[in-house]
Amino acid sequence: MNTKALEKAALSVRALSIDAIQKANSGHPGLPLGAAELGAMLYGELLRHDPSDPAWVDRDRFILSAGHGSMLLYSLLHLAGYKDMSMDAIKSFRQLGSNAAGHPEYGMAAGIEATSGPLGQGIAMAVGFAVAETMLAARFNTAAHKIVDHYTYVLCGDGCLMEGVSAEASSFAGHQKLGKLIMYYDSNKITIDGSTDLAFTEDAAKRYESYGWQVLNGSMYDFDEIARLTALAKAETSKPSIIILTSIIGKGSPNKQNTADIHGAPLGPEEIAITRANLGILGDFYIAPEAAEYFTAKQAEWKKARAHWQLLFDAWSKENPEKRREWDTFYSGKATTAALPVYNAGDKIATRTAGNKALAAVALKNTNLAGGSADLKGPNAVGLPAELGTWGAANRAGQYIHFGIREFAMAAICNGISLHGGFRSYCSTFMVFADYLRPALRLSALMRQPVVYVLTHDSVFVGEDGPTHQPVEHLASMRVIPNLCVLRPGDAEETAEAWAIAMERTGGPTVLALSRQNITVFPKSDPDWKNTIRTGAYIVKQAEDGTPDIIIIATGSEVSIALEALDKTTGKNIRVVSMISKELFESQPAAIRDAIVPPGVRVIVCEAGVRFGWERWAKPEDILSIDCFGESGPAADVGKHLGMTAEALAAIAGR
Amino acid sequence: MNTKALEKAALSVRALSIDAIQKANSGHPGLPLGAAELGAMLYGELLRHDPSDPAWVDRDRFILSAGHGSMLLYSLLHLAGYKDMSMDAIKSFRQLGSNAAGHPEYGMAAGIEATSGPLGQGIAMAVGFAVAETMLAARFNTAAHKIVDHYTYVLCGDGCLMEGVSAEASSFAGHQKLGKLIMYYDSNKITIDGSTDLAFTEDAAKRYESYGWQVLNGSMYDFDEIARLTALAKAETSKPSIIILTSIIGKGSPNKQNTADIHGAPLGPEEIAITRANLGILGDFYIAPEAAEYFTAKQAEWKKARAHWQLLFDAWSKENPEKRREWDTFYSGKATTAALPVYNAGDKIATRTAGNKALAAVALKNTNLAGGSADLKGPNAVGLPAELGTWGAANRAGQYIHFGIREFAMAAICNGISLHGGFRSYCSTFMVFADYLRPALRLSALMRQPVVYVLTHDSVFVGEDGPTHQPVEHLASMRVIPNLCVLRPGDAEETAEAWAIAMERTGGPTVLALSRQNITVFPKSDPDWKNTIRTGAYIVKQAEDGTPDIIIIATGSEVSIALEALDKTTGKNIRVVSMISKELFESQPAAIRDAIVPPGVRVIVCEAGVRFGWERWAKPEDILSIDCFGESGPAADVGKHLGMTAEALAAIAGR
Repeated sequence: MNTKALEKAALSVRALSIDAIQKANSGHPGLPLGAAELGAMLYGELLRHDPSDPAWVDRDRFILSAGHGSMLLYSLLHLAGYKDMSMDAIKSFRQLGSNAAGHPEYGMAAGIEATSGPLGQGIAMAVGFAVAETMLAARFNTAAHKIVDHYTYVLCGDGCLMEGVSAEASSFAGHQKLGKLIMYYDSNKITIDGSTDLAFTEDAAKRYESYGWQVLNGSMYDFDEIARLTALAKAETSKPSIIILTSIIGKGSPNKQNTADIHGAPLGPEEIAITRANLGILGDFYIAPEAAEYFTAKQAEWKKARAHWQLLFDAWSKENPEKRREWDTFYSGKATTAALPVYNAGDKIATRTAGNKALAAVALKNTNLAGGSADLKGPNAVGLPAELGTWGAANRAGQYIHFGIREFAMAAICNGISLHGGFRSYCSTFMVFADYLRPALRLSALMRQPVVYVLTHDSVFVGEDGPTHQPVEHLASMRVIPNLCVLRPGDAEETAEAWAIAMERTGGPTVLALSRQNITVFPKSDPDWKNTIRTGAYIVKQAEDGTPDIIIIATGSEVSIALEALDKTTGKNIRVVSMISKELFESQPAAIRDAIVPPGVRVIVCEAGVRFGWERWAKPEDILSIDCFGESGPAADVGKHLGMTAEALAAIAGR
Repeated sequence: MNTKALEKAALSVRALSIDAIQKANSGHPGLPLGAAELGAMLYGELLRHDPSDPAWVDRDRFILSAGHGSMLLYSLLHLAGYKDMSMDAIKSFRQLGSNAAGHPEYGMAAGIEATSGPLGQGIAMAVGFAVAETMLAARFNTAAHKIVDHYTYVLCGDGCLMEGVSAEASSFAGHQKLGKLIMYYDSNKITIDGSTDLAFTEDAAKRYESYGWQVLNGSMYDFDEIARLTALAKAETSKPSIIILTSIIGKGSPNKQNTADIHGAPLGPEEIAITRANLGILGDFYIAPEAAEYFTAKQAEWKKARAHWQLLFDAWSKENPEKRREWDTFYSGKATTAALPVYNAGDKIATRTAGNKALAAVALKNTNLAGGSADLKGPNAVGLPAELGTWGAANRAGQYIHFGIREFAMAAICNGISLHGGFRSYCSTFMVFADYLRPALRLSALMRQPVVYVLTHDSVFVGEDGPTHQPVEHLASMRVIPNLCVLRPGDAEETAEAWAIAMERTGGPTVLALSRQNITVFPKSDPDWKNTIRTGAYIVKQAEDGTPDIIIIATGSEVSIALEALDKTTGKNIRVVSMISKELFESQPAAIRDAIVPPGVRVIVCEAGVRFGWERWAKPEDILSIDCFGESGPAADVGKHLGMTAEALAAIAGR
């Protein structure tokens, strides 16, 4: 270990960070300056990676959970030789189109493993990476060839630890004995408001012990200690490790270090001059020659290690052709088509139950699909066929995951599993608790990860549990998220297709909104409905007499209400459309939309949720919706009380 | 302490619970049966309360965080003599209109202190109650008269502890030394999925020690031990206490106790018969005579204690007339009108900054307003005038609260402060992180608590921080929540009125959506705009020539874009409307709406957020919106990149 070079690398991180932030006149120097030594150690000594092949499957992962310190990551990616993080990118930090965005954005530059910034989620995603590593290793490693063997490193700050999601994820990680997860805690005792004494004096070491982690303590500014503690973390294979590194925020800035001022604002030209003099920074965007040389030498080493792994992988492939085929399927980026369950019109089945049958079919064909529920395996109906096993310390090849009552961490862990590569992930809870996991759902969408969210009990027809458990605003609240596809199938047949659509998706997450209550499978007028439904809507019931007077657009369980309303309406020629995805349908070309909902025809909408958003399709008075919180009572009573009935719909149609 | 009577009270809780759940054919017997002894102790011996005056200000509070166990609470309210919880209510458990709703619903019956069911939030609300108690005591107690002196008790289960919000709230409570907060943890090692061994094996005792709590351990089924541990909890005045009670879920049901089966389903007639025989339950909805006698005797004691307090309070009132006047103001349920800051057209000021000025004015007049930010006091601009002080262990009379980076707990704590009575509360973070606190925002709305949510950095004009920090879907996602009023003021003057409107509200929470960037104060055509704005919209700029050809509806910072667009448009007669609250405006009678947006006139909408919901007012092509995630870059560049400019708006108007 070349301590001298590492010092120069840390100096270069500081130099690049203060200059990039100053040039942008925006950014967070506190963390890059405070944690530069750890960064240098990670990218120089600790990480097994190869900047010339950032997608190397068996690389170690590093997630900067404290994403505001993005210049730490960018500086290191640049120094280590990641091409996407050129000096031009660094110099255009926080400018439109720069790979060096304000916070690390997944997909903007190779080497950024996850989008971070929303605090705490980086920790939970790192847990997901570590989960995925165990799954991949268990599937593919052989006694002779350990082709999967990498660590997940994460760097967090006080903010991440204060966020509840870190508690959920860390408790899960300890329980699940994720020995290859190593977290560095940049403990600088300063937050935006000032000292952590204002709000955060818990004993983090004891807290992590309570979760079953190995807890190690040291200084941020002792390379040998970081090396030693990391070695101890690696040596403990049955516990994740937290390495608490005492640090100084903004270290190197003589007047601003150790104050809240340096957390999130440029140093200013004066303080930059003083800092440069203090540290020995010899120019703009300075990279110390020793650091450059060091990383150049490292690049050769890394390439060698990467090539060595390739030999291992090739040998393994030769000896294990079947495993290799499975591996290629895992990494194909495409789901394998499954034969979906078949139903007959008239079958009575809740769409959550139909979802379970579809999930079973899909999971048996896609053994890289892993996921579970936040302690609602039965109610959500998301268990997997027994042969697929339960993932855990005792069986790292299992596909079902017990997340515990931790919705937010569950979703973030699923993001991590998906980001890791090789796996698809799904998670599940009651739809009303989508609120609990919403920040991670947003990151799924922003990072375009095809995580499947199975959200059951999708309306007031939940019944007795009452308003705390009855979603009314949730469909609308999720439809507004860009890149997210909300699918609310109307019966068991549609549910099977919905699972297929979710698995076909690669550019973003999918919500499957499923019913608690039984729904009767209905006949479909459109003979090609299984294709048409992929536009977001199709004609369930053609108007008796050719051109309709009225089109009823309904979703989910309300398609049945619409069909029932037909019998209660006379003298009208009504078409019923099941709009499984409002946003998908609205994104279609006009010709496709017009074929299903021709312009000029009166439209009535029926959905057991808020009206908001449906005014695009119908006049307010033609929307049968629920614009208040629900009530506790048997489902049918609640529906009647809130006017969500076939009678009420027929009355609107009859007007 | 009459142990025999308490046993009979516990037996009666079990009897009422199993029968009510069976009759409803729905509900959760596991907790009521498992924690009946604690319940009997609480409502018989521990709580200082008076069922004949459930609103008694100095009563102890009990929050059932594990709200699914609602029959525990209902049984005890009934036994203790709370009139709202009649036997009819118990017998109509979970039926439409029953006071005994599926989960405890605040407002359905006196004695229910908070709506619970969404796990973990009861703990955080309890923290809020305990905060409020210290504030009230510090304001009003005198050396001679301790008129405020009550405890906050909360009962939680494994689920509550797994939820991240409990971690946030508990870390806060420990830091803040809330000695009068006492939490019982019903540790039964069973969740819906099965044993806690599946997902939850952390050391809860050590975890709570790490937060700075006193940790006590005992058995659920030893009245003396519960009494002794509760006394220890009360004796520790500088730490909250957790009392971990080992219990058996569903205790008393011979075949189902200690299994996941009993968590959330009726026992069934057969098991009820066996349970009755096992416990000595002598009939339907059985109340043991000894229990009834016991509570009758207690009622007399409680009335005496209540009367004694009244003497104390009256004596205090006599000696402290000024304090008494302040007390009455605190409990008036009405905010005191403040003289709001005044601006001149042309002033350049961010609405977050204007918000701070208004907040200062409001808080100085309403010293019962308490709140703060999740570590963004400066960026959110929600600090209070220094003389109002910072609340904490050193100053329980302070009004500013440092919540730490714990958005979810912050909002739930604010709900608790508001529910406690005497106080108004506000909280603040970046708007994008409204997602983190959304479950508590929903509860504010459901419980109709007038908590003020100050959400700054309300659009992509945040700029450099990029898409993780730029809300695009958040305005829409909050407008869909029933009972919530989202206010997005267009300039500093509107912001002052927005704060006034928020304080006038009593029936639900308010969101104030405020800008990071400076906005120029604009002149207003409507001379009565300060009244008109209370309808949700008013005319900022009347069309030059009487009746408009086009109405531009804009909100927040986009009102300025609309005004700027006027100069770039020729030959059109345009009215500009600032719609500070879409949902408020839409709830007005047609005559009011039509005066501002006359039917038949072309409407263009401009808002830096998703289009969703605006189709009620304009055709899709006439809505200038942002329907994708944002980008990192200087605000003006981002606005231009996303087409959110006066030029783009003028182009639409010119079509």
